Amino acid sequence: MSLGAALRVTRGLSGLLPRLPPRWGHGGACAPPLLLAQQRSNSTSTKIKVEFDPSSGVAVMRMQSPPVNSLSLDFLTEFCISLEKLEMDKSCRGLIITSSQPKVFSAGLDILEMYGKSPERCGEFWKAVQEMWLKLYSSDMITIAAINGSSPAGGCLMALTCDYRIMADHPRYTIGLNETLLGIVAPFWFKETMANTVGHRTTEMALQLGLLYSPSEALKVGLVDQLVPEEQILATATQTMTKWLAIPDHARQITKSMMRKATIDRLTSNREADIQNFVNFITKDSIQKSLRAYLEILKRKKA
Amino acid sequence: MSLGAALRVTRGLSGLLPRLPPRWGHGGACAPPLLLAQQRSNSTSTKIKVEFDPSSGVAVMRMQSPPVNSLSLDFLTEFCISLEKLEMDKSCRGLIITSSQPKVFSAGLDILEMYGKSPERCGEFWKAVQEMWLKLYSSDMITIAAINGSSPAGGCLMALTCDYRIMADHPRYTIGLNETLLGIVAPFWFKETMANTVGHRTTEMALQLGLLYSPSEALKVGLVDQLVPEEQILATATQTMTKWLAIPDHARQITKSMMRKATIDRLTSNREADIQNFVNFITKDSIQKSLRAYLEILKRKKA
Amino acid sequence: MSLGAALRVTRGLSGLLPRLPPRWGHGGACAPPLLLAQQRSNSTSTKIKVEFDPSSGVAVMRMQSPPVNSLSLDFLTEFCISLEKLEMDKSCRGLIITSSQPKVFSAGLDILEMYGKSPERCGEFWKAVQEMWLKLYSSDMITIAAINGSSPAGGCLMALTCDYRIMADHPRYTIGLNETLLGIVAPFWFKETMANTVGHRTTEMALQLGLLYSPSEALKVGLVDQLVPEEQILATATQTMTKWLAIPDHARQITKSMMRKATIDRLTSNREADIQNFVNFITKDSIQKSLRAYLEILKRKKA
Repeated sequence: MSLGAALRVTRGLSGLLPRLPPRWGHGGACAPPLLLAQQRSNSTSTKIKVEFDPSSGVAVMRMQSPPVNSLSLDFLTEFCISLEKLEMDKSCRGLIITSSQPKVFSAGLDILEMYGKSPERCGEFWKAVQEMWLKLYSSDMITIAAINGSSPAGGCLMALTCDYRIMADHPRYTIGLNETLLGIVAPFWFKETMANTVGHRTTEMALQLGLLYSPSEALKVGLVDQLVPEEQILATATQTMTKWLAIPDHARQITKSMMRKATIDRLTSNREADIQNFVNFITKDSIQKSLRAYLEILKRKKA
Repeated sequence: MSLGAALRVTRGLSGLLPRLPPRWGHGGACAPPLLLAQQRSNSTSTKIKVEFDPSSGVAVMRMQSPPVNSLSLDFLTEFCISLEKLEMDKSCRGLIITSSQPKVFSAGLDILEMYGKSPERCGEFWKAVQEMWLKLYSSDMITIAAINGSSPAGGCLMALTCDYRIMADHPRYTIGLNETLLGIVAPFWFKETMANTVGHRTTEMALQLGLLYSPSEALKVGLVDQLVPEEQILATATQTMTKWLAIPDHARQITKSMMRKATIDRLTSNREADIQNFVNFITKDSIQKSLRAYLEILKRKKA
Repeated sequence: MSLGAALRVTRGLSGLLPRLPPRWGHGGACAPPLLLAQQRSNSTSTKIKVEFDPSSGVAVMRMQSPPVNSLSLDFLTEFCISLEKLEMDKSCRGLIITSSQPKVFSAGLDILEMYGKSPERCGEFWKAVQEMWLKLYSSDMITIAAINGSSPAGGCLMALTCDYRIMADHPRYTIGLNETLLGIVAPFWFKETMANTVGHRTTEMALQLGLLYSPSEALKVGLVDQLVPEEQILATATQTMTKWLAIPDHARQITKSMMRKATIDRLTSNREADIQNFVNFITKDSIQKSLRAYLEILKRKKA
């Protein structure tokens, strides 16, 4: 792909907006009747809604934290608790992750958690980001991302941890690890998750430039596996899940672990150092200044 | 590639059939007159037929173990002996591997070697599988797979160890590491051989789902390098070999070793643990039960 | 890509010619007026011409060592000094590397530095090759290769170290690591640089066969990122640079280092052994004989 086709700094910036005013009337995902039929809701969370269908063994997790499912500490905590519950329920074999917010899957890490916070709080936040990644990337469940909106930065990471990615084919949606556009850096485990998906070279260029891909570009480089019209995304995810469910769990789980273990181990054995590294970087004056400038752009956009 | 296009559980299962009744009249490969002209047969094996042409420095190895070239302990032993003879003959610079059985290159590991056998025997079998892989993947010869039929599981592995893969373009042939469909798991060196060929992401999805690819799908993901009509497969392999033979052996061999050494070393230094791991897994009651169920399906299909 | 399309031994050999008689009247690159306007020349080198434009923060480095920019010890020394000067100038953020010689970017390592030389001299030469690679692959600057001619062997390596590769779309230009055609072997860090760009399998086949790719083939496998008509190559490089310059330097540099550190560390911690390895190999009688035969072919071609 030529650079010209891939680099869209403007879209890049808007893609990272953590506090976009929600616009209704477009793209709100509905659960297909099939899944609602026998559903058993085990959600006590306000930011995460989980519907589990014992007859199929498949749960649908909807992120519903307005306006754009930013990954705040509260959000991540609820997300991890919901995930752990499902993981421990041996009757739950598959998980579909999607968004209840219009036009966005998740806008990624909440910048407000990184700006003007104490080192302790920053460390706590980063630990929660690690936890989300560790839980998702090592999940025994079949995980499918139904990406029904833009998915920059941490939102893209979340999608990348899944076993399969289906994206709504809407020309204004984008996906990518665009951290450099804000002057921040995707850590090594973001990088490895992406490289495991699209290879070293695509990752090198995408991370340096903070590239956000349109759905068709994302399909071309392998960042997502399939595009469908937005209204078909959950039905497609459910059909795809059926095919994955036909594989014996035990063999599939061992195979998945074999593919991901090296990457997971590198974070597990470096967790504290990775937290320190993040805290030292994010609390630097120059980085805080960049974040403030960025937040001001966002405020002006909202005004 | 969309999942729908790639996943064919039914074809997957039939692709692994180790005891398919042979059907004649289609696809039996014939040596081209060129190779037969000056051939010197050094085959004493019944399962492997080797024709070596001293004038070209190229040997053709035909697997001829009816019905489907299953990789039994006997087969593997004969295969490795034949391979070692060629490897030690410095006048033999290139090897073309193909099948004399109609419609199948090799159906992979013989399930009867894994079902109802003692741990000792299972360990002996696995050591022979390792040996085949080690010898092929580290061969100093130029190795070309002329895949003139389906090539699931261990048959696919065998093809993956070669320097170049030409597949017969027949829509019913399939190739892939489909172990999970049986509830078993491709070991790490199968995985690395595949990842070295098609990359991490394609391997992750293919191994989890036990994907079997049609020839055109296999070409698209890079699992094979070229498709030709079945009747041209040996002629094409011979022409391709001529191009590889133009490269100075010494430089090519060092280069090949440099590309594969890390993967080979990982098995060489973990051989005993890998055998133990296989034996512990395959002798589990649950796995034996899966294999019995599978063998019964095969029996019913034959009846 | 089929082997037939990619393997061109004849072109391969001519592509490595280190002493081709230059033919003028075609392809000489001119600096666009924009860059000449405010340029400040800091070149004292005869083989390397550097123009730095303080207003844009971008330097253009032209290799001008007739006839084909062979990488001799003198050339490499001047190249590294020029590079270091730019690297230390914090106002220089981007570097475009191109050739002033017609039809060739760089013909790669100068064979005369490897033939009939003392082990000490060979070691000194190899250290300079390492130095060029280390400086380029770890550069903090944005590096863009404007490949306005053929680029075999070491010329290809130089291009591969850059952040982005634009190649002139001329059907007779070729690019690739074709060392095996001469009976020599690309060292592990050439191999890793290529694998980081085009993946393991493409590298394995290309290095074994010494493949030289046409521009369109190179684009297809990802060896270059973009093709343009030759007369537009510097303008395109300049436009591309503008996009890269929009990314905050600090975040981009850390990201680049994260992607390349493992490969760089492997050479840094094995430099002496790598030099010894090269010297032992290149001073072998058999290799010296190959090089002499090759030099004689070149002489005959020139006559």
